[in-house]
Amino acid sequence: MGSLKTPEVVPSPEEDAQKLKKAFIGFGTDEDMIIEILGHRDANQRKKIRETYHQLHNETLIDGLNKEVSGDFGKAVILWTYDPCERDARLANEELKSRIRAIKDLEIIVEMSCASSPQHLVGVRKAYCDLFNTSLEEHILVSVPMPLRKILVGLVTSYRYDKEMVDKDMAKLEANRLHECIKSKDLAHDDVVYILSTRNFYQLRATFEHYKEKHGHPIDEDIMNSGKGDLESLVKMVVLCIDSPAKHFAQIVKTAIMGLGTDEDSVTRAIISRAEIDMMKVKSEYLNMYKFNLDDEVIDDTSGDYRKFLVTLLGGKI
Amino acid sequence: MGSLKTPEVVPSPEEDAQKLKKAFIGFGTDEDMIIEILGHRDANQRKKIRETYHQLHNETLIDGLNKEVSGDFGKAVILWTYDPCERDARLANEELKSRIRAIKDLEIIVEMSCASSPQHLVGVRKAYCDLFNTSLEEHILVSVPMPLRKILVGLVTSYRYDKEMVDKDMAKLEANRLHECIKSKDLAHDDVVYILSTRNFYQLRATFEHYKEKHGHPIDEDIMNSGKGDLESLVKMVVLCIDSPAKHFAQIVKTAIMGLGTDEDSVTRAIISRAEIDMMKVKSEYLNMYKFNLDDEVIDDTSGDYRKFLVTLLGGKI
Repeated sequence: MGSLKTPEVVPSPEEDAQKLKKAFIGFGTDEDMIIEILGHRDANQRKKIRETYHQLHNETLIDGLNKEVSGDFGKAVILWTYDPCERDARLANEELKSRIRAIKDLEIIVEMSCASSPQHLVGVRKAYCDLFNTSLEEHILVSVPMPLRKILVGLVTSYRYDKEMVDKDMAKLEANRLHECIKSKDLAHDDVVYILSTRNFYQLRATFEHYKEKHGHPIDEDIMNSGKGDLESLVKMVVLCIDSPAKHFAQIVKTAIMGLGTDEDSVTRAIISRAEIDMMKVKSEYLNMYKFNLDDEVIDDTSGDYRKFLVTLLGGKI
Repeated sequence: MGSLKTPEVVPSPEEDAQKLKKAFIGFGTDEDMIIEILGHRDANQRKKIRETYHQLHNETLIDGLNKEVSGDFGKAVILWTYDPCERDARLANEELKSRIRAIKDLEIIVEMSCASSPQHLVGVRKAYCDLFNTSLEEHILVSVPMPLRKILVGLVTSYRYDKEMVDKDMAKLEANRLHECIKSKDLAHDDVVYILSTRNFYQLRATFEHYKEKHGHPIDEDIMNSGKGDLESLVKMVVLCIDSPAKHFAQIVKTAIMGLGTDEDSVTRAIISRAEIDMMKVKSEYLNMYKFNLDDEVIDDTSGDYRKFLVTLLGGKI
């Protein structure tokens, strides 16, 4: 369940587009109005607003926003306003066009392929081709070193069966195969890539469960005990993302706000990605894992319009 | 350019659906009427007829046809009536669920990934999940032996950039890489798979052209000279299909009607797949390659309603 709250009676896209224009012009920008409108519209409603705004005002809503908003608030509002597939394509492109320095830079790619629907992933790939004149997988091939690239290309090219269907015998077989590959430190073996990138999520969860039962440890622990390199970190992230997207995103938020300074980009990405999907579950996992309220922690760590916008997406009152 | 001819004024889907029902009932089946209607409607028009027929007659058009038509004619009409993505998913499934005996059995999979748009391929993958409760790539993994499966999984998971964009330097680089892999008989090398399954078709054609210029022979010749196994045959088919889908399909038709007996399934598949895409080009390649008219050869080798239907799709008069 998402945290986004849309009004019972949704204003027409014309009305929203006009109000947004009004918020942009005149003395300063009316950020509250922007938050009030865009922070309470789902993807489909935002799409209609984008289309209507463009027709009425002869500029795209994104261009309009770009002139008026800035900083973390601006980034967040703009990401939220994009079509979700275009948003993820842009986020992935940002990472791929700069040097990949850490596994963290690949999070968005893992999330779109391991914590999203096959339709969403295909939509991102289409948007990537349309926006950047290259396919996502081609860009991964030139930007990410082996063996990480092998895992990522497998993941982003997946189109998983998306109904609940589990073959228990296969789960046992593949849990054992994964165990062998982890033991022999061969995490980029074809079999690992095929298992993680073609099986449906329910099947993989059964495989991970069987792994733990049979081999005594959670698979992610065994992966991390097999080595401390980037490959291990990446495969662990993949496994966690598949096993529980909500836990993964709770972890992303926690890591981003922990310690000195905040990694706003990660907080933004997590909240924007999941506000319409499973943010209520992310919050409950967060509470469970860290004994703190996600909303409270986000409020403590942010300020101004940025805070207001995130709180709105989290379903809270400003 | 396709060969399919649709009427200037297309009857309403209701009218078509009623006429088809009439063709099914009473004394015998009115095959001519079936051909007259379905053989002159494009994919979108057939979709509307399917929907309308279902609404009006409380059975699917496919079920209606299944009761009335049979033999090669029946198979062809039914394949033509399916949504093209569903059709290819069913054809691929037919091959994958029986034992793969020859590279020929993998033709449909190569065609859908090397001679179709990325949208079509994704549509087939979606249809495959919907129809068979497994993803296409999972089915390939259990049905096709290594190393063929590695090539096929790469191909079916592709989502190629689909505008004309060629990087000449990359074409040179990758032609050389392909040459090295062919020379070292390493056709299932990751690099070969990545090149053939992520690059756009224009780029790959430039790569093949450069290969011939630089290394003296067409790449398909070098592949076949490097070995006589299934892997070489498969990769050669992939290269030809990418290089010129029209030549590939001309070859399919020729092989199917050559010698004693006809391979009707292949003739049907080739004509049905390309009637709306590039059948005019297939015909001209056929004439060019074999000095015979494709239409004449199909007429010589077929008979009855089956012949009438194919001739109709080829744009000829019955």
